[in-house]
Amino acid sequence: MRANEIFAAEQKRINTFLSQQLDNLCSEQSTLRNSVAYALLAGGKRIRPLLVYATCDAYGLPYSQADYIAAAIEMIHTYSLIHDDLPCMDDDNLRRGRPTCHIAFNEATAVLAGDALQAIAFEVLAQTPCQPKQIVKLIQIMAKACGLNGMAGGQSLDLEAENRQVSLAQLQKIHAAKTGALLTACVDMVAVLVKIEDQSDHLHQFAQHFGIAFQIIDDVLDVTAETKTLGKPSGSDQGLNKSTYPNLMGLDGAQKEAKKHIKLCFKHLNNLSRNHEKLHKLTNFVLDRTH
Amino acid sequence: MRANEIFAAEQKRINTFLSQQLDNLCSEQSTLRNSVAYALLAGGKRIRPLLVYATCDAYGLPYSQADYIAAAIEMIHTYSLIHDDLPCMDDDNLRRGRPTCHIAFNEATAVLAGDALQAIAFEVLAQTPCQPKQIVKLIQIMAKACGLNGMAGGQSLDLEAENRQVSLAQLQKIHAAKTGALLTACVDMVAVLVKIEDQSDHLHQFAQHFGIAFQIIDDVLDVTAETKTLGKPSGSDQGLNKSTYPNLMGLDGAQKEAKKHIKLCFKHLNNLSRNHEKLHKLTNFVLDRTH
Repeated sequence: MRANEIFAAEQKRINTFLSQQLDNLCSEQSTLRNSVAYALLAGGKRIRPLLVYATCDAYGLPYSQADYIAAAIEMIHTYSLIHDDLPCMDDDNLRRGRPTCHIAFNEATAVLAGDALQAIAFEVLAQTPCQPKQIVKLIQIMAKACGLNGMAGGQSLDLEAENRQVSLAQLQKIHAAKTGALLTACVDMVAVLVKIEDQSDHLHQFAQHFGIAFQIIDDVLDVTAETKTLGKPSGSDQGLNKSTYPNLMGLDGAQKEAKKHIKLCFKHLNNLSRNHEKLHKLTNFVLDRTH
Repeated sequence: MRANEIFAAEQKRINTFLSQQLDNLCSEQSTLRNSVAYALLAGGKRIRPLLVYATCDAYGLPYSQADYIAAAIEMIHTYSLIHDDLPCMDDDNLRRGRPTCHIAFNEATAVLAGDALQAIAFEVLAQTPCQPKQIVKLIQIMAKACGLNGMAGGQSLDLEAENRQVSLAQLQKIHAAKTGALLTACVDMVAVLVKIEDQSDHLHQFAQHFGIAFQIIDDVLDVTAETKTLGKPSGSDQGLNKSTYPNLMGLDGAQKEAKKHIKLCFKHLNNLSRNHEKLHKLTNFVLDRTH
C-alpha cells in the first residue's frame, strides 16, 4: 500500500469533519463563508490532522476525541496559507492546484477569510470533549504556536530574511517558529489529552525533527518539482530570494540534512515505547512526498 | 468632571496592563513585536476595556479579575483596526493621530501584526483568573464575536455594501456583527465571571443598544468632525461610498437614531437593579464624544 493510501481514511475523516464544522458554525451563505469553504475544503495532504491522528493511534486514544484538535489546527494552517499567498507577502496565484483565495475572490475577502478561520479555529478547539482545564491548555498551546514567537513571528522573520544571507542557526530559528511550532502543537495537544505533559519527552522531540525535515523537503521540492505536481508555482522561493535550505547548503546538502532529521524522528519514535506504526508511516510519507 | 477624566484611572490601568502583557508574551525585540506594540500601545479611548471595567463596577467584581478580558478584547479590536486600514480594505493612512501600521511598517508586517494580535488575545484571555470552565466560555464568546457571524463576517458584509443602497435592517445586521458583537462580548464575558449567563437579560440588551449607538455616532463623526479631532481621515466613509447611517437617513435622522438607542441603553441600565453609575457615565461618554 502506498503511503497516501494508508491515510485515506484519516483524510476522509478530517475533510468530512471540517465540512460539518463549517456548517455548524455558519449555516448562512455569504461571500466570506464561501471563501473560507473554498480555501478550507480544497483538499491538501492534511499532514497536521494526520499527525494528530497518528499520535492518537500511538497512545490508544480514539480519533473522536481529537477531531476538534485536528480541525482547529488545519483551520489555522489554512488561514496562514491564505495570508502567505497575499500580494504583499509571497504573491502566489496557485495553491493546492487552484487559484489562491485572493485570486478567486479578492484581497480584502482573503484577509478576512484568514481572520475568520483563526477565530473559528479557537471556537472549534474549545469544543474538544475533555476536561475544561485540558481545553485551557489546548488553547494556550495553539495560541502560542500561532503568535509572536510562533507562526506569525516566524513568517515575519522569513520575510525579513529575503534578499540576505542567513546562517543555518537563523534559518532553523525561522522555521522552528514558522512551520515547526504548529506541527509540534499537534503532538503536544494530544499529549494534553493523554496527560503526558513533559514537553522534553521523545514525542515532542520527534515532532521538532519532523518539522525541520518537513520544511527542508518543502524547500527542496520548490526547486525540483514541477508546478503541476506541486499544486503551487515551483521556483517561487528563488524568485523571492528566500532563505531556504537549498540556497544555504545546496540541493544535495539539503537532502542530506532532511535525511538526518528523519533519522532522528525514527530514533525518538523508537524511544517512545508505544506502537508508533502510524507515526512511522507518516514520517515516511513526509520524506517520500513529491508534492 | 469631564467624561474623559472619569475614566482616566481605567485607561491608565489597561494601558499599563497591555504593555506588561506584551512584555510577558514576547521579551525579544523584533519587527513584528514592534509593529504590534506600535498599534496596541498607541492610546485610543479604550472604550471596550472601559465597558468591561464599568460592568465589573456594577457587579462588584474587582477590576483585577477582568484585566485579561479587557486586554484580550482591546487586542482583538486593535487587530481589526490594523486589517481594516489595509490598502485592500479601507486604505486609511491615519489612525489614532499617527500613520497606520502598514504605513509605519509595511503591508506584510501589518497583516502579520493583526494575525499575531488575534492569537495573543486568546492566549491572554486563557489566563483569566477564574475556573477553567469559565475560561472555556470566555473563549467561546470571544471567538464567536470575531468569526464568520461576528466581526470578520460584518466587515465582509460592510465591504459588499459599498456603492450600493442597503436597507436600515441590513445596515443594522452589518453593524451588529462588525461592531456590536465585540462590544456585547465585553459585558457577556463579565457576566460569565459573575455567573449571570442569561443573555436575554438587561445587561446584554444594554450592550446591544450601546453598540448600535456607538456605530451611528462613529458614522456621524466621520461626516462632521475634522481629521485633526478625529485622529483618522474624516469623510473617508463617503469617499468609499460606504453604507452609513447618515447616508441612509441623513445627518439629523442619524443623530436622532443614536439618541433613541442611548435612551434604550439607559432604560435597560435602570432595569439592572445594580449600581450602574459607571455604565451610565460611559454611555454618556459615547454619546458626547467628539472623536
